[in-house]
Amino acid sequence: MSLGSLALNLMGVKEDDGHHEGFQIFHVEWSRVELPYVFFSWILITTFAKLGYNYLPLAKKLPESSIMILFGLLIGVFLFLVNISAVVLTPDIFFLILLPPIIMEAGYFMPNRLFFDQLGTILLMAVVGTIFNMFTIGFSLYGLGKAGFYGDDLKNIEYLEVLLFGSLIAAVDPVAVLAVFQEIKVNMVLRIIVFGESLLNDGVAVVLYHMFESFEEMGESAITPTDIVYGLISFIVVAGGGTVIGIIWGYVCALVTRLMKPVYLMEALIVISMAYMSYLTAEVFHMSGILAITFCGITMKNYVEKNISESSSITVRMGMHLLANVSEMTIFLFLGIVTIMNETHQWNSYFVLATIVCCCLWRVVGVFILSKLANMIRIQKINAIEQVICMYGGLRGGVAFALVLSLHSPNKNLFVTTTLAMIFFTVFFQGITIKPLVRLLRVKTRSATNVSMGERVTSRLMDLTKLGIGEIIGNTSEVPLIVRHMYKRVDKKFLSPLLLREKVQEPKFFQTFEYLLKEDALRGIQKTSDEHH
Amino acid sequence: MSLGSLALNLMGVKEDDGHHEGFQIFHVEWSRVELPYVFFSWILITTFAKLGYNYLPLAKKLPESSIMILFGLLIGVFLFLVNISAVVLTPDIFFLILLPPIIMEAGYFMPNRLFFDQLGTILLMAVVGTIFNMFTIGFSLYGLGKAGFYGDDLKNIEYLEVLLFGSLIAAVDPVAVLAVFQEIKVNMVLRIIVFGESLLNDGVAVVLYHMFESFEEMGESAITPTDIVYGLISFIVVAGGGTVIGIIWGYVCALVTRLMKPVYLMEALIVISMAYMSYLTAEVFHMSGILAITFCGITMKNYVEKNISESSSITVRMGMHLLANVSEMTIFLFLGIVTIMNETHQWNSYFVLATIVCCCLWRVVGVFILSKLANMIRIQKINAIEQVICMYGGLRGGVAFALVLSLHSPNKNLFVTTTLAMIFFTVFFQGITIKPLVRLLRVKTRSATNVSMGERVTSRLMDLTKLGIGEIIGNTSEVPLIVRHMYKRVDKKFLSPLLLREKVQEPKFFQTFEYLLKEDALRGIQKTSDEHH
Repeated sequence: MSLGSLALNLMGVKEDDGHHEGFQIFHVEWSRVELPYVFFSWILITTFAKLGYNYLPLAKKLPESSIMILFGLLIGVFLFLVNISAVVLTPDIFFLILLPPIIMEAGYFMPNRLFFDQLGTILLMAVVGTIFNMFTIGFSLYGLGKAGFYGDDLKNIEYLEVLLFGSLIAAVDPVAVLAVFQEIKVNMVLRIIVFGESLLNDGVAVVLYHMFESFEEMGESAITPTDIVYGLISFIVVAGGGTVIGIIWGYVCALVTRLMKPVYLMEALIVISMAYMSYLTAEVFHMSGILAITFCGITMKNYVEKNISESSSITVRMGMHLLANVSEMTIFLFLGIVTIMNETHQWNSYFVLATIVCCCLWRVVGVFILSKLANMIRIQKINAIEQVICMYGGLRGGVAFALVLSLHSPNKNLFVTTTLAMIFFTVFFQGITIKPLVRLLRVKTRSATNVSMGERVTSRLMDLTKLGIGEIIGNTSEVPLIVRHMYKRVDKKFLSPLLLREKVQEPKFFQTFEYLLKEDALRGIQKTSDEHH
Repeated sequence: MSLGSLALNLMGVKEDDGHHEGFQIFHVEWSRVELPYVFFSWILITTFAKLGYNYLPLAKKLPESSIMILFGLLIGVFLFLVNISAVVLTPDIFFLILLPPIIMEAGYFMPNRLFFDQLGTILLMAVVGTIFNMFTIGFSLYGLGKAGFYGDDLKNIEYLEVLLFGSLIAAVDPVAVLAVFQEIKVNMVLRIIVFGESLLNDGVAVVLYHMFESFEEMGESAITPTDIVYGLISFIVVAGGGTVIGIIWGYVCALVTRLMKPVYLMEALIVISMAYMSYLTAEVFHMSGILAITFCGITMKNYVEKNISESSSITVRMGMHLLANVSEMTIFLFLGIVTIMNETHQWNSYFVLATIVCCCLWRVVGVFILSKLANMIRIQKINAIEQVICMYGGLRGGVAFALVLSLHSPNKNLFVTTTLAMIFFTVFFQGITIKPLVRLLRVKTRSATNVSMGERVTSRLMDLTKLGIGEIIGNTSEVPLIVRHMYKRVDKKFLSPLLLREKVQEPKFFQTFEYLLKEDALRGIQKTSDEHH
């Protein structure tokens, strides 16, 4: 046998000379490992795209989400040129893999106190606002269609079909809001209202979407008043059911983590798995998975953080940040790729224009009216500038796209293209201009929100008392991680030698404590007077 | 409409009275979420089983792996009674999902110095030992068959088929070895030899298995000498290729983590993803994934640990421990379940007995001969007691089972049942008795291995010098995490006030340093004298 044929055989290439199929040294078997390989390749591609963004000098001026879409467009063009047809984004991949980690992180790190303080306004915006937007956008688009604005083809478009489209394009997207609001540092109250709205409107959006989907399948004539009553009841089922499922899983997880001491290694896994299970359980019953995982995170957090070990806690936090970050970037990357790869685009400039204008217009009107309503009851009013940012925060994103992909209506292709156009508009135009706008309007940003000296001293007193008591009893596990880290640098020199090294000496401890408080008070006064001058 | 039918409709149950299909409030859709739901349910079940084990008073006396098999048997009986046929363990699930995390952890936490010190002995055991075992077991079983020991049915069993079985049953299993050796605290050298063997024999096992698989397919008569030469070459390709792929991915990961500062959140994900990719890449080319991921871990570790942030490092470590732990437990759980669920068992007591006896006998002979060979060169000889533990450590586990499942030979059912019996024998009998045996033989355990006072002082000197220099230049990132943790409690009172709080004062630092060293030396002398009395 020649060297050449040996080499060929080594490469697993079979010769055609009728030689018997001998033992192959070198095999390639792609199909078996394809699924995990592709999955992890996407993770690496996303990470490298994010890394690339951070090294681009120009990039810092644009929001990350827009850059990821641009990277996605580039990858899409590349895949198109080499003629690879990769399925990158299906509704199931979006709703079962990419979305849950983002909402899980959002729920887990939700500032609970603030969220429940603002719950009234958030619910007003999420429920009334979304229903308002859906009907106004839907009927405006329908009216414009009847008037022949989109051309003759779409003159006879059914109102149920347009309302279905309205239901999916009306809701503000939590992923897009998170991506943009992370980068502009507006104050927490404004942020929680816009973000809370985008989370809680999911119940409404899912119900309206499924309602109009069923109605469209049934046909106009077959809808009875009972069906409409059922539609209203189903809102309670979907939103309430999702919330209840989330709270139950949250408490179960809180209980389970109490017992996990002997297998503390698994704590992080259990916390993340159970939160995800709450989402899946809600989805099984067609309830709002977003509400389930949000409330699961809100419910479990305080218990879990105290039950699990410190390294598990770091792993849970890092793991959630990490998964959410990758998913978020992957969604925008995929949106870019899908735009190029989708072969059934149907572009109608008038319809796209009408959609963008209607969405913006009714968002402005909706926020204006609802803020007026909310301000009747609110003590801390939503002022005009905050209303503008709130209007501007009505971003659309992956949720709308995943919903439009699962449509079965005759004008699906038109709707898909229009939804992409709307997402691009909000992510690029609104996403890029919101930062300058915030600066222009001098919106109260987070760092400028002064905590009064009294508050600062009191909260520090509480922290130090807890830390001090913890150190005396030799167990600081009740003291939040962040407090221990904050005071490690400053106070160790006072606390440590006195408390840890020798025997406990309370009088000395309280001396030190008093000294620290005085020092802090002085610093506070100094800082306040600095700021006034 | 009656209340009853409303309730039915609410439940999504359709009435059969010809009423039109109205709007459904309550849907159940299982198929869409089935895959992730089942996946995470298994994670929860495994965790609860492990938790249950830790609360069982009796359990502490049995190794965890045996308890997990028992739990698996219980679950299997339950599934059998309720008549659910769940596919729990396929070769792909084993090799692509369950095995990689375990080997990844093993490679990443490999004590590199010790491993390379012992590499000669390990390779001798892994390569020569496994080939020796395979042929001796194979031919013994074949001979017993020809002699009619298993009955007349198996008298005409082909020798290639038995050698194929021999190739999969000969290799020591890394997962079983890890599970048992974690619980008995033998000294590190002994441990690394047994465990190293179980890792590195994978190359041999894969090659021999695939070689005999091809030979069997080709038929006895068609095998040419060239095929056998190819078989030998393919050993170099499979083992060398796997190792090279692993090292390349390891260095790539080391390089990438150098650049990750701006996106430090993703560090943990990248490290774990890249290690897994090395495994998948090797598997694509039918090379040894186990060797790839082991050497990827060994290569990357030192670089990665220094490149990534502290919380990423904790997340990587916790993540790896966690994934490995869950996978390990799941494998044993599934082995238990599969034993009950498998409907094609073929039990032949004589064949089972012959397999167990041959495996044990040839293991004893193999280790005895190879130790003699190794001791010719070794300075620190493997003594008789260590040889016994080494023989005893020849456990079989999931790898053999996954390989036997992918067989296509006529006696597959017999081999599957026999492999399970062999696994049960090693996990239960050897796993349970190894602890008493270790105590009986007074094997040098880990804690009893004394480090000489000189070594202790020198290593502490090095650690403290690094820590001290780190604190002076204000950057301790070069100092391993473990060192920083170790000395935090003891030395902060000396180092911190002198170095961190005020300006750097070298003379004072060296005073402290000298003091610490003296103190340490004194403590060392005291400890040594304590031990002698």
